[in-house]
Amino acid sequence: MIESTANKQVRNLIQLIKKAKVRRETQTFVVEGIRMFREVPKEQLVQTYVSESFLEKQENHEALKGIHYEVMTDKVFAAVSDTQTPQGILCVVRQKEYTLEEILKKEFPFLMILENLQDPGNLGTIFRTAEGAGVDGIIMSSDTVDIYNPKTVRSTMGSLYRMPFFYEKDLKGVVERIKEKNVSVYAAHLKGKHAYYLEDYRSGCAFLIGNEGNGLTDELAALADTYIRIPMEGQVESLNAAIAAAVLMYEVKRQRD
Amino acid sequence: MIESTANKQVRNLIQLIKKAKVRRETQTFVVEGIRMFREVPKEQLVQTYVSESFLEKQENHEALKGIHYEVMTDKVFAAVSDTQTPQGILCVVRQKEYTLEEILKKEFPFLMILENLQDPGNLGTIFRTAEGAGVDGIIMSSDTVDIYNPKTVRSTMGSLYRMPFFYEKDLKGVVERIKEKNVSVYAAHLKGKHAYYLEDYRSGCAFLIGNEGNGLTDELAALADTYIRIPMEGQVESLNAAIAAAVLMYEVKRQRD
Repeated sequence: MIESTANKQVRNLIQLIKKAKVRRETQTFVVEGIRMFREVPKEQLVQTYVSESFLEKQENHEALKGIHYEVMTDKVFAAVSDTQTPQGILCVVRQKEYTLEEILKKEFPFLMILENLQDPGNLGTIFRTAEGAGVDGIIMSSDTVDIYNPKTVRSTMGSLYRMPFFYEKDLKGVVERIKEKNVSVYAAHLKGKHAYYLEDYRSGCAFLIGNEGNGLTDELAALADTYIRIPMEGQVESLNAAIAAAVLMYEVKRQRD
Repeated sequence: MIESTANKQVRNLIQLIKKAKVRRETQTFVVEGIRMFREVPKEQLVQTYVSESFLEKQENHEALKGIHYEVMTDKVFAAVSDTQTPQGILCVVRQKEYTLEEILKKEFPFLMILENLQDPGNLGTIFRTAEGAGVDGIIMSSDTVDIYNPKTVRSTMGSLYRMPFFYEKDLKGVVERIKEKNVSVYAAHLKGKHAYYLEDYRSGCAFLIGNEGNGLTDELAALADTYIRIPMEGQVESLNAAIAAAVLMYEVKRQRD
């Protein structure tokens, strides 16, 4: 039983929850809550922690079957937890690495390429929507917000475990390699002449989505085969990045269905 | 010059920012930032406050032309402000009331009906996307989160000023009156048999969107003419409410364009 926040495991957990750098170095991240715990692929599970209250409830024992776990006092658990009303279970999970080759293995790949997205909620929501829309992989510039930050992990609703993705320093290089595979690259851009729904997405396609405030850099946008735009009425100048991504992803799904 | 947070106007402002009840009673709300200030319809502007630093900058004078304003010390302004890095301008704005008749005045109205939405960010994003997609009005159950809460106001990006809407205690009654006007009512529902993109939305249409966790109540859903669903791949059980609303709204826009 862990009874003090001075405990070494507790101190490590807090670092792992707070710091992207520690997550990167250890190639692990923290997941909280019973639902997110249940969905962890078992081969990625490193360590599990539960609170005393959690363990007292008979209905929670099923989820822990065959799993090694450590128990914390409720007070210590609350100090570690990133949520206001902790469910009493959290775990350390190994990060999974994907390659461009894995993401491109289908005949007609469907990819999202995100440049410098900064809102954790937006990123998590894009992962969740992407899984729903049948996206094959998400590639992010290395300055995109960390997908392993606890708020983002939560907002993926488990899609994080299932959606292939990687961070990439040389996003331009990756886009060039994707184009060589006959995947059409579309930039969601205010300069776009074509309404997004006038294109045919049934072959391989990839969408470039830019930063919330500044959009795509000219450098990356220049690599696109086609600039598309989402038509907007009224005085709306742009849509939220996760919304714009969703509208595009579901148009692909509609056409492919 | 307002130099103390004990000032009566300051105390009133803080109440107005913090409490939905005060906003309801006074039929006003607070808007912060230069962009949101510029877009306020002048007939709704009640009072404007700026910080000393704001006033010192020559480039800010243009926005204040012909407008009566009060000056606060930077310290008082920071105490009132709802943001971490205040821009130095905020104002009290009169709420605008719309009626069902105004919202239904077009030949083929396009409406969103929201039941018990609880996430302020979701609600604001729905307003912004709705304006972009050409929605004619948004009707919300009276237990939906307050659109005038400062975080929500910000996330509408000004659409709040332009999108007709009202809160309604008797949402069922309103849906019945809408149906009498030959507007087809669609419920976004997990039980839906029809994929949303198989319906024709070029006539009048209204969409029922339910609470983030629980979806629509059976009572309200029962009034829909058609249950539709957004198809989802992988293990995704539902989409974020603002994302689901966006996918539906942009399918209407696509068909109507």
